[in-house]
Amino acid sequence: MKKIFFTPGPSQVYPTIQKHILNALKDDILSISHRSKEFEKIYQSASSGLKDLLKIPNNYQIFFISSGTEAMERIIQNCVHKHSHHFINGSFSERFFDTAKELGKEPTKTESTFGEGFDFKTNKIPKDTELICFTQNESSSGVSLPIKEIDKISKLNPNKLITLDIVSSVPYVNLNYRMLDVVFFSVQKGFGLPAGLGVLIVSPKAINKAKILIKKGVGIGSYHNFISLLRYAEKNQTPDTPSVLEIYLLGKVIEDMKTFGIDKIRKQTEQKAKLIYDFLDNHKSFSPFVRNKIFRSQTIITVNVGDKQKIIKNYLNELGFIVGSGYGQHKDTQIRISNLPAHSISDIKRLIAALKKY
Amino acid sequence: MKKIFFTPGPSQVYPTIQKHILNALKDDILSISHRSKEFEKIYQSASSGLKDLLKIPNNYQIFFISSGTEAMERIIQNCVHKHSHHFINGSFSERFFDTAKELGKEPTKTESTFGEGFDFKTNKIPKDTELICFTQNESSSGVSLPIKEIDKISKLNPNKLITLDIVSSVPYVNLNYRMLDVVFFSVQKGFGLPAGLGVLIVSPKAINKAKILIKKGVGIGSYHNFISLLRYAEKNQTPDTPSVLEIYLLGKVIEDMKTFGIDKIRKQTEQKAKLIYDFLDNHKSFSPFVRNKIFRSQTIITVNVGDKQKIIKNYLNELGFIVGSGYGQHKDTQIRISNLPAHSISDIKRLIAALKKY
Repeated sequence: MKKIFFTPGPSQVYPTIQKHILNALKDDILSISHRSKEFEKIYQSASSGLKDLLKIPNNYQIFFISSGTEAMERIIQNCVHKHSHHFINGSFSERFFDTAKELGKEPTKTESTFGEGFDFKTNKIPKDTELICFTQNESSSGVSLPIKEIDKISKLNPNKLITLDIVSSVPYVNLNYRMLDVVFFSVQKGFGLPAGLGVLIVSPKAINKAKILIKKGVGIGSYHNFISLLRYAEKNQTPDTPSVLEIYLLGKVIEDMKTFGIDKIRKQTEQKAKLIYDFLDNHKSFSPFVRNKIFRSQTIITVNVGDKQKIIKNYLNELGFIVGSGYGQHKDTQIRISNLPAHSISDIKRLIAALKKY
Repeated sequence: MKKIFFTPGPSQVYPTIQKHILNALKDDILSISHRSKEFEKIYQSASSGLKDLLKIPNNYQIFFISSGTEAMERIIQNCVHKHSHHFINGSFSERFFDTAKELGKEPTKTESTFGEGFDFKTNKIPKDTELICFTQNESSSGVSLPIKEIDKISKLNPNKLITLDIVSSVPYVNLNYRMLDVVFFSVQKGFGLPAGLGVLIVSPKAINKAKILIKKGVGIGSYHNFISLLRYAEKNQTPDTPSVLEIYLLGKVIEDMKTFGIDKIRKQTEQKAKLIYDFLDNHKSFSPFVRNKIFRSQTIITVNVGDKQKIIKNYLNELGFIVGSGYGQHKDTQIRISNLPAHSISDIKRLIAALKKY
């Protein structure tokens, strides 16, 4: 029986992945030098394909690193002398805050309850904040922050940098990148790739901040600081030996998504999410963990299932449906269902039918 | 025509790679969670397999990161407050030194001419050195440092940490790990894997140094500091989402190598290297760049070919043999030939026959 992974990530791979990997093997993509013209074409294809797919301004840079977690470290190092401000409502936004502390910064925070959003009207951001950090889609709780609220904060704070974690909402989330300075994700969720690649989308203003920090004598890291990444990106290369296969696969899946149509991907994501939430809202014992519909993620759906969680997970498992557990204290009473471009409408309908039957 | 890559890395993949990747696709290795029991088994298999293959002491830790370049950064961060000492005779040993500078340390160095080794008898290491850094096999020049000289320095400096870059000599190089504190490599050379994984082999003494630095208030990085890596390694996990596929493939290739026999791999490496060096030593216009036989690498063979380098590379290319260019100022007058476990004796003989015919 072929399994379908509805886990929050790594998750179901994009349907064309097997074909692309076989082509990569045939065409020696695993052996080519990362300093070759052939690699530069692969880099360029992924980088410009991404800009095209997500409507990223041309003067923004695309940097390839190894994970979303690495992205947090590099962003703090390159954009913060002392003060970052973090909107925390789950484990990943907290991880970002902790990263700033571990790197010797003095981060501040606006905290909300796990599973809830923020009251953006009343939130105060300290004056000396250099970087405001949002986790747009909290994979741990299934809370998603409305883009227009983030854009408003960006407009109100023209002298601060804004960074956005879209690890589990890309490519669904539709952003105005000009309002943002560093946006990052990893590829094992929305793009349906094997894990092992992180992507940084960086504004000229953020690059400039890294330059200012260097001049001040603040350490911004070594090979993966923004200046080193930029120097190599300008020749379609990376400072280190990257996962050539991952960058190749990203370029190929982006082509596939462009052929399918990003608008269609986004529309279908909402249709599939609606099927799930409608089912949950009317179920007698299951319920969506996120009560406020404004903050409900379209891509990571967290479900209260009660003390029978293990039994439900096993039941689904036997039918070939793999779902995630809850996070932290909700580990044994929630399941998490991802709704990604790799999941077809019929996959989602089959999962709902199985849950209905339980 | 099927190509054979003799490039310094990425290079020819191990002959079983395609089979293992197909199995990984079939068994959903690309989709499983990095927090699952299934992943823990994969981690454990690669980690204990490596210890077994290379005879690494049981109390040493295996950490999975993303590249050899990342290894340099993490080692400097976690093992050095101020003073590292670097033996520099090529681009990668120089990169290690530069990393220390970029991270705000005060590194010192012993320099040698590119293409030469060191006179270990006369070298002085500053008293306050905390970490001595060797690039055991300089991929840029094809110079290899004798292990017994490194062991001697280790014995003479019991209070200093010793780190060894074996990026392009693993698994050929036969080390006494008890004389060393941090050894590192990436997988796209000797293990014949696709690029995208770095491995740190870390002694208890090096872990302890990281703890001392924390107590002193010295920054040792965030998610990939030794303490965080250790906390996760103890449960066969990584702090971030790693390349699950790479760790899976590493475990599988290690099993293959154990079946084939590490002694046989090492013996064959020397036999193949001898074939190449003997040919070059007797050739009228080609010659090994490394004159002193004591310092000649068995795995990266650098050849002076003169001003016809481009023509020779193209000639080999048309026969399906891909070799590397020289490094830096030798880019257009040298070729580099890798001699790795993925290269059979007959591959090497065919390459030599082609060079003979030229």
